Amino acid sequence: MYTPEYLEDFTIRVFEKMGCSKEDATAAAKVFIAAELNGLPSHGMLRIKDYFQLWQAERINVKPNIRIVHESPSTAVVDGDGAIGMIAATRSMEIAIEKAKVAGTGWVSTRGSNHYGIAGYYSKMALEHDMIGICMTIANPVVAPTWSVTPMLGTNPIAVAIPSKSYPPFVADFSTTPIARGKLAVAGKKGEKVPLGYVQDKYGNPSDNPDIIKEGGSMLTLGGSYEHGSHKGYCLSAIVDIFSCVLSGANFGPFCPPSVAYLPLKDEKVGEGTGHFFGAMRIDAFQEKDAFLSQMDKWIETFKSAKPGVGHERVLIPGEPEMERQERILNEGISIIEPIQKEMKEIADSLNLEFQVGM
Amino acid sequence: MYTPEYLEDFTIRVFEKMGCSKEDATAAAKVFIAAELNGLPSHGMLRIKDYFQLWQAERINVKPNIRIVHESPSTAVVDGDGAIGMIAATRSMEIAIEKAKVAGTGWVSTRGSNHYGIAGYYSKMALEHDMIGICMTIANPVVAPTWSVTPMLGTNPIAVAIPSKSYPPFVADFSTTPIARGKLAVAGKKGEKVPLGYVQDKYGNPSDNPDIIKEGGSMLTLGGSYEHGSHKGYCLSAIVDIFSCVLSGANFGPFCPPSVAYLPLKDEKVGEGTGHFFGAMRIDAFQEKDAFLSQMDKWIETFKSAKPGVGHERVLIPGEPEMERQERILNEGISIIEPIQKEMKEIADSLNLEFQVGM
Repeated sequence: MYTPEYLEDFTIRVFEKMGCSKEDATAAAKVFIAAELNGLPSHGMLRIKDYFQLWQAERINVKPNIRIVHESPSTAVVDGDGAIGMIAATRSMEIAIEKAKVAGTGWVSTRGSNHYGIAGYYSKMALEHDMIGICMTIANPVVAPTWSVTPMLGTNPIAVAIPSKSYPPFVADFSTTPIARGKLAVAGKKGEKVPLGYVQDKYGNPSDNPDIIKEGGSMLTLGGSYEHGSHKGYCLSAIVDIFSCVLSGANFGPFCPPSVAYLPLKDEKVGEGTGHFFGAMRIDAFQEKDAFLSQMDKWIETFKSAKPGVGHERVLIPGEPEMERQERILNEGISIIEPIQKEMKEIADSLNLEFQVGM
Repeated sequence: MYTPEYLEDFTIRVFEKMGCSKEDATAAAKVFIAAELNGLPSHGMLRIKDYFQLWQAERINVKPNIRIVHESPSTAVVDGDGAIGMIAATRSMEIAIEKAKVAGTGWVSTRGSNHYGIAGYYSKMALEHDMIGICMTIANPVVAPTWSVTPMLGTNPIAVAIPSKSYPPFVADFSTTPIARGKLAVAGKKGEKVPLGYVQDKYGNPSDNPDIIKEGGSMLTLGGSYEHGSHKGYCLSAIVDIFSCVLSGANFGPFCPPSVAYLPLKDEKVGEGTGHFFGAMRIDAFQEKDAFLSQMDKWIETFKSAKPGVGHERVLIPGEPEMERQERILNEGISIIEPIQKEMKEIADSLNLEFQVGM
């Protein structure tokens, strides 16, 4: 088991060796560690190799000039200048928060970025400022719009964090597909079948084969079938795409640049890099702060009091499962599976860094 | 077949007879007619009786003092003072648009309102100002959070309207459930079964009986089952609830006041009336307007070019089906089913108005 401190320190050193400033490397490392602590290893140490290889391929900018290129009192478009996604996203959310301090709310659409890890991290940055945080991003196009077979959208997640007085914050962080891409990949590796409604074959027939997307198939939007409202998931995913990319001038939908170096850059560009969208709403721009926080307590208590259905013992508030996993992981330490440890050791060796395998 | 003008004129007269000002009556009538023109009769003439009966029961305020009770440069909380929902909502969206003109974006959370008809109407108000419009509302609690059997949430719709240069606007307007409440009711009246994933019985077992909600059952959130991501639909619906009601001080979740007079007011109040949430984002607060509109054209062309799957001839852009229905209805006229015509005639008689049955 690794401590968060050990892994954060290692991650900072990796990014510093790539050429990032201490400040940028630290900002990026915090997002990787947050994913591990939230029990989402698919966005944790696993992804360091992706960034290492993008750096080797000279497809990321470790000395970016991240800047506002257009703004109004409550909005900004940020150009990430090809930065590591976590760095561009952290800076963008800070700008949204600064805007909100003055204008009541702040909204930032970011272009020229890359894969930014877990959306929930940025939405939660707003909480310590007594704000509601919102965050969205596009991702590799593997999802087909309803009635189509062309992968045009990513799993395009949405995260919203809302503070309360006495309880952990409400934190919704979810992809706009029935299942996250990482979980589908895991089922594929295990050779398991998946329920109908996750994926379709290249003709648009329902499929239970998680690897069908390697054979021209595609993931389906939240709802899973038109009958069950997949067109609503398509709407959601499209909104994330437009807010993140058309508002900022990034590569929307099928033009999203790959987040891994083994996939070639696309022939056609319609904008700059990957796009995200951030929002911060100051609580006291709507309500006296304490009144709002007390009412959120009442909201949480009300929903926790819902009667569980057969086979369930309790009803969850969004964010509770991640919070409980984090408590457990903080106690037990972070477990890194062996193949990932091996990758980290290889990266360490090639950068002349220490990494202890088998902790 | 009725003309939109005839029905709008009739609706204005009904609301004027109830005591509304000409301006308020006109604002309300426009939303009713928009529902009919969009081919959504469940939110059209059918609902006039609901408001007529709420007025008879003295449960709406026809002379409301709709006002801002809290604000910042980009936000406001609006108190609807018990107004007809369409009037409070129209005023609230106007305020969001005014805020956006100055601050780049405008965000309004509204309390003390009532059922406001179709969400898409208000989001589309932003389009003529070269803005993106956003709108959400709570509704009667008939939807259970994932893993629970207690109806705590409404079908809580979200609407987002985005302008383009050469095409009809992108207009997403969808409930956060697999199916809208009205369609479920229709299936019940026809004695039809519905697919699993729409509703559950009072114990939480899947059900294909659309009338099960009259026997202690509940509707399910978008996703339909946990396996298919219903917790994501729960997150979405909860976000709509909190933005509409906790930010404004309205009655959240299970405390949402009934939108019909035959249901008694609830014993417990946690705020004022029904809540909604509105947003307006000025395009040129993010991008030069023409550049954005051209890029939206490219977005629409890209998604229209997606290859249709088996059994489908084309891929839709959100808003297209409603737009096509509207073109047809504008040509053919508005068809009102006989029972609703009868209700309208009864209302006309009791208010000393003319209404011609059988047009």
